[in-house]
Amino acid sequence: MQIGVDVGGTSIVVGLVDDEGRIVARVAEPFPTGAACERVGQVIAAMSNTVAAQAGVRCGECASLGIAAPGSLDKEKETILHAYNLQLHDAPLRAVVARHVPGVPVLLANDADTAAVAELFAGALKGCMTAVMLTIGTGLGSGIILQGKLFAGGRNNGSEIGHMVLQQGGRLCTCGVEGCAEALCSASYLESQGRQSIVEYPKSMIHTKAKGDMQAVDAKLVIDCAREGDKIARHIYDQFIDHWGSAVVSLIHILDPEVIAIGGGVSSAGEFFFQPLRENIANKVFFKRDYAEVVAAQMGNDAGVIGAAMLKKFS
Amino acid sequence: MQIGVDVGGTSIVVGLVDDEGRIVARVAEPFPTGAACERVGQVIAAMSNTVAAQAGVRCGECASLGIAAPGSLDKEKETILHAYNLQLHDAPLRAVVARHVPGVPVLLANDADTAAVAELFAGALKGCMTAVMLTIGTGLGSGIILQGKLFAGGRNNGSEIGHMVLQQGGRLCTCGVEGCAEALCSASYLESQGRQSIVEYPKSMIHTKAKGDMQAVDAKLVIDCAREGDKIARHIYDQFIDHWGSAVVSLIHILDPEVIAIGGGVSSAGEFFFQPLRENIANKVFFKRDYAEVVAAQMGNDAGVIGAAMLKKFS
Repeated sequence: MQIGVDVGGTSIVVGLVDDEGRIVARVAEPFPTGAACERVGQVIAAMSNTVAAQAGVRCGECASLGIAAPGSLDKEKETILHAYNLQLHDAPLRAVVARHVPGVPVLLANDADTAAVAELFAGALKGCMTAVMLTIGTGLGSGIILQGKLFAGGRNNGSEIGHMVLQQGGRLCTCGVEGCAEALCSASYLESQGRQSIVEYPKSMIHTKAKGDMQAVDAKLVIDCAREGDKIARHIYDQFIDHWGSAVVSLIHILDPEVIAIGGGVSSAGEFFFQPLRENIANKVFFKRDYAEVVAAQMGNDAGVIGAAMLKKFS
Repeated sequence: MQIGVDVGGTSIVVGLVDDEGRIVARVAEPFPTGAACERVGQVIAAMSNTVAAQAGVRCGECASLGIAAPGSLDKEKETILHAYNLQLHDAPLRAVVARHVPGVPVLLANDADTAAVAELFAGALKGCMTAVMLTIGTGLGSGIILQGKLFAGGRNNGSEIGHMVLQQGGRLCTCGVEGCAEALCSASYLESQGRQSIVEYPKSMIHTKAKGDMQAVDAKLVIDCAREGDKIARHIYDQFIDHWGSAVVSLIHILDPEVIAIGGGVSSAGEFFFQPLRENIANKVFFKRDYAEVVAAQMGNDAGVIGAAMLKKFS
């Protein structure tokens, strides 16, 4: 038995996970917005005790407690450096939780890394020795599997595939560099291009559906309009797929992974996303056959809890 | 004792290498241009016997025989698929050589990979667990070290970092894709931009030094003019450095290596190359401190022989 904790800006979910990866008990609570690290740690510890009790075990008997957190961590995976969603900065969350659950090894990881672990344990990356997990959201999260384990980076900085450069001189990334994958492959790319388009093309379907309101344009609306055949939306979406093709092809040429799994909002467009992406990759890839499979992630909402619970096993 | 064979378009060099990486005997012969695989294999075997005899050992006593070849290999590292320099295609060189040196394990590898092994064994990557070697030539060769060994790729395709995309819509690569690293970071980039510049800027230093002859413009001339402060050459060179910065930063964000070593022609510009490159990287990198060192490769002309000799140890 192990405990997995998925910390998000709206809620904390804690699950007790058996060795087969089944969530045998689960509790969820709103994230204590504005609370200091100490308090967040106490909440996590209390929820862990609750979830263990629900299943008739003691928290202290669990093999490990893993925490998935959004944001950047220090190299030692002790401290959340910046998690804007959580309003936590320089927060030594691992040690705080560990103090409240004596006897249990506590691990902290970035949620993109735990997503990769979850897919490795029971999802799209199961059985892989070399694989990549990419999560599309406002940004672009990544986790790399090497030798069948989560790759921590050669200097423990982890992976930031979202900040590989795909288009020098291209769209400015939040990190300040032009043309990062995150600036071109994220939901925010579709959103910003869609919003820009309603200024330039007041007769487009995006404009009509949004009733001219920029705030009403999001990634989903652009994808919906592209699906319905709107020319402007289709153009934006084709560019987006082209960016994704370049990102995936670059990863294939560097890591030559067995599988690249893609999850998060936009990937739920299903074959409308994966089919043109695979064609784009086939046109660009240097290895003419037997290169990475590109598939949808499978773990959905449980990825955080299960990935966090399995962190120790796959680190 | 092990034998390292460096096969190039002009010559074959065979060295007997001791366990400390010293070349204790060496022979070189012109490459038998136009010869079939069988003949090339015979030449390599005969040279290996010669070099062993020079040091008073029998070839069959050697721990391994490694061959560094330019060109693409099959996944099993049995066959040279295409080596245009050598005029060899679908050439099962490993088995041919093995037949002629019974009792010695024979390994075949791409020369970019053996360069990485040479640097790992005794050069700029010594002691590294995670590192990258990049070789600038007409193209851009790469070898990746993971877990202290040569990384064969997750599907045995090896690495083709030269074909990661840096600038969608940018200069066309020989592979047919726009904006590959190879199209933007190779000597051929400097050459083609230099040649183009003498058409557009007939008063530039490049034009003057080349006496208006396009064929006289090569990467070295562009670098020389940039060094002397010519504005046009400097602009081309700055773009080149910017491309290199993007390539290296992307690798840092994916692999977070301890060291990235760069070798080959252009890197011999020394600090005129490395100093602006490091500045460019510092401006782009997401990890604010303690990221990869970017250094010159150290093994020079012996990289092929020593890397080939040490292949077995580091595969």
